[in-house]
Amino acid sequence: MLDSRQVTASAPGKTILFGEHAVVYGKPAIAAAVDKRAYVTISKREDHLTHVTVGDLGVSGFLDLKNRTIQLENGSGMQRGILEYILKALIKAKTEDSVEVDVRLDIPIGAGLGSSAAVTVATIMAAASFNQITLTNETMANLAHQVELDVQGAASPIDTSLSTYGGVIYLSKQPQKLVKLEIPHELPIVIGYTSTRGNTGELVKLVRQKKDARPEVINPILDSMEAVANGARQAIIKGDHKTIGLLMNINQGLLDALGVNTEELSKMVFTARNQGAMGSKLTGAGGGGSMIAYCPGREEEVVSSINQFERAFQINVAHEGVRLEKPRN
Amino acid sequence: MLDSRQVTASAPGKTILFGEHAVVYGKPAIAAAVDKRAYVTISKREDHLTHVTVGDLGVSGFLDLKNRTIQLENGSGMQRGILEYILKALIKAKTEDSVEVDVRLDIPIGAGLGSSAAVTVATIMAAASFNQITLTNETMANLAHQVELDVQGAASPIDTSLSTYGGVIYLSKQPQKLVKLEIPHELPIVIGYTSTRGNTGELVKLVRQKKDARPEVINPILDSMEAVANGARQAIIKGDHKTIGLLMNINQGLLDALGVNTEELSKMVFTARNQGAMGSKLTGAGGGGSMIAYCPGREEEVVSSINQFERAFQINVAHEGVRLEKPRN
Repeated sequence: MLDSRQVTASAPGKTILFGEHAVVYGKPAIAAAVDKRAYVTISKREDHLTHVTVGDLGVSGFLDLKNRTIQLENGSGMQRGILEYILKALIKAKTEDSVEVDVRLDIPIGAGLGSSAAVTVATIMAAASFNQITLTNETMANLAHQVELDVQGAASPIDTSLSTYGGVIYLSKQPQKLVKLEIPHELPIVIGYTSTRGNTGELVKLVRQKKDARPEVINPILDSMEAVANGARQAIIKGDHKTIGLLMNINQGLLDALGVNTEELSKMVFTARNQGAMGSKLTGAGGGGSMIAYCPGREEEVVSSINQFERAFQINVAHEGVRLEKPRN
Repeated sequence: MLDSRQVTASAPGKTILFGEHAVVYGKPAIAAAVDKRAYVTISKREDHLTHVTVGDLGVSGFLDLKNRTIQLENGSGMQRGILEYILKALIKAKTEDSVEVDVRLDIPIGAGLGSSAAVTVATIMAAASFNQITLTNETMANLAHQVELDVQGAASPIDTSLSTYGGVIYLSKQPQKLVKLEIPHELPIVIGYTSTRGNTGELVKLVRQKKDARPEVINPILDSMEAVANGARQAIIKGDHKTIGLLMNINQGLLDALGVNTEELSKMVFTARNQGAMGSKLTGAGGGGSMIAYCPGREEEVVSSINQFERAFQINVAHEGVRLEKPRN
């Protein structure tokens, strides 16, 4: 059933370095694309059906692009979610039924590493190329953000921007814009993640309730997070390891004060510091999920220590965003 | 050698509920006297020597009140410290050589529970009574604070005030004064403590260095701590358990952001919350030492869970401060 025409695109995941939660209230954040990618291959089917396989998750199903429906073939309801991103991304790139979509993920799902944005952006580029449409990066980022908004109800543009452009971005407050940071050095980071997944929507709501009830307590915490992100921006540009680490540790305490830290995250955070990390913090919404450790020269020690009780791996900044891959054969 | 004339006084230890570290910068703090006491018995010796025994610590030694010197008999150099408080307290109460001093402690040493202030205040009252001098509480609190300043170089008046007056105090910012809070209910608290002791002077210095280097980051943290202490004052008076707990958790994150939390403290803090504590935080300078958990109705569960890896016990507020004890025989 497969035609010889076949296109593969890939896009990187991301991690938030500074400013999660505060960014909801217009404070700055810093995030980086990471060298763990989603690969999406699109090929022609002769039967006018659209079929998707996400091999790593054991998920597959048929999509109906005209009626916008999904028929799950394998996988649980929880995992069905990824097919919604793919359905909407295919439609944005004006795809018609009769394609086979193969997704391969380097990125663990639900670890706060932006797997949905990476899949969405890679799908848009692969489908556009397959459909012989040329899209600018800006258009792809916008379309992907629309897909995330559609599926999730709310979404920051951070994830889809990083999957599109790569690199490190500073999301500024006023005007609301993304500034790409030029970093003259590597930013080796260890990610540790738990199988417990926080519910981002609920965690954001929890923080808002606290802020509404006690603005005099919470507003200064957000102000401190703003100063942390601005200090970190300078430190990252300069390659000032010590300050990057110090500010991560402060940011971790502030996130704990907001109530989004957990015992598991805290254990990983302290383990990383004990193994020589210059700083460590939870990343993303918290309540489970992931932490990051900044530990130049101590990556192996930190990874193996965390791996004794949770899962960890090293990442680097992905300088390249979404791209077409050469055919494999 | 012992005369029949013998006087025993006791004074309670304390725990800081809110505002440690921030209090150094003029922010408010809340602390409570706790029902763990130091007992000091003074009796007449015929040989014109002054001898002290601190049974629980295995420390004893001879004091020379005229020349202000200490000759350690038993115990390590570390433990010698307590004899300095006793020496200076005896002198403040105009004691002359020829007394036997017996100290018994309910309060663990070095757990941030104000054992030195309790011993100092109890020694002053016992010695004054022995010497047939009448001192007001205010005078005793002042003399004890002078002793702490003398021995430590710096000391907040919180510990000696609580050992003298008992109860719960709010140390206000401007004017700098102590306000006794009337609490219409019990405040059952669990203390967990590690054998690791933080160095208060170094921890205070560490925070000051961070504040000097990055006031834009640290000042808002202190502002938030101020709002936490003020909110907690109202919640304690009202007996609003939920708010007391919530504010403790926020205060814990803010202390972590200042860099004075440790892995051991964090583990106890989360264990307490898992066992139903409404809030938990480190107490005192941090870097080791103690944590407190506010857990009405769940005290036993929290104590036994922490006791599986560190030491914990329940305390209540000591409403009575320093007092003379009836003769034991």
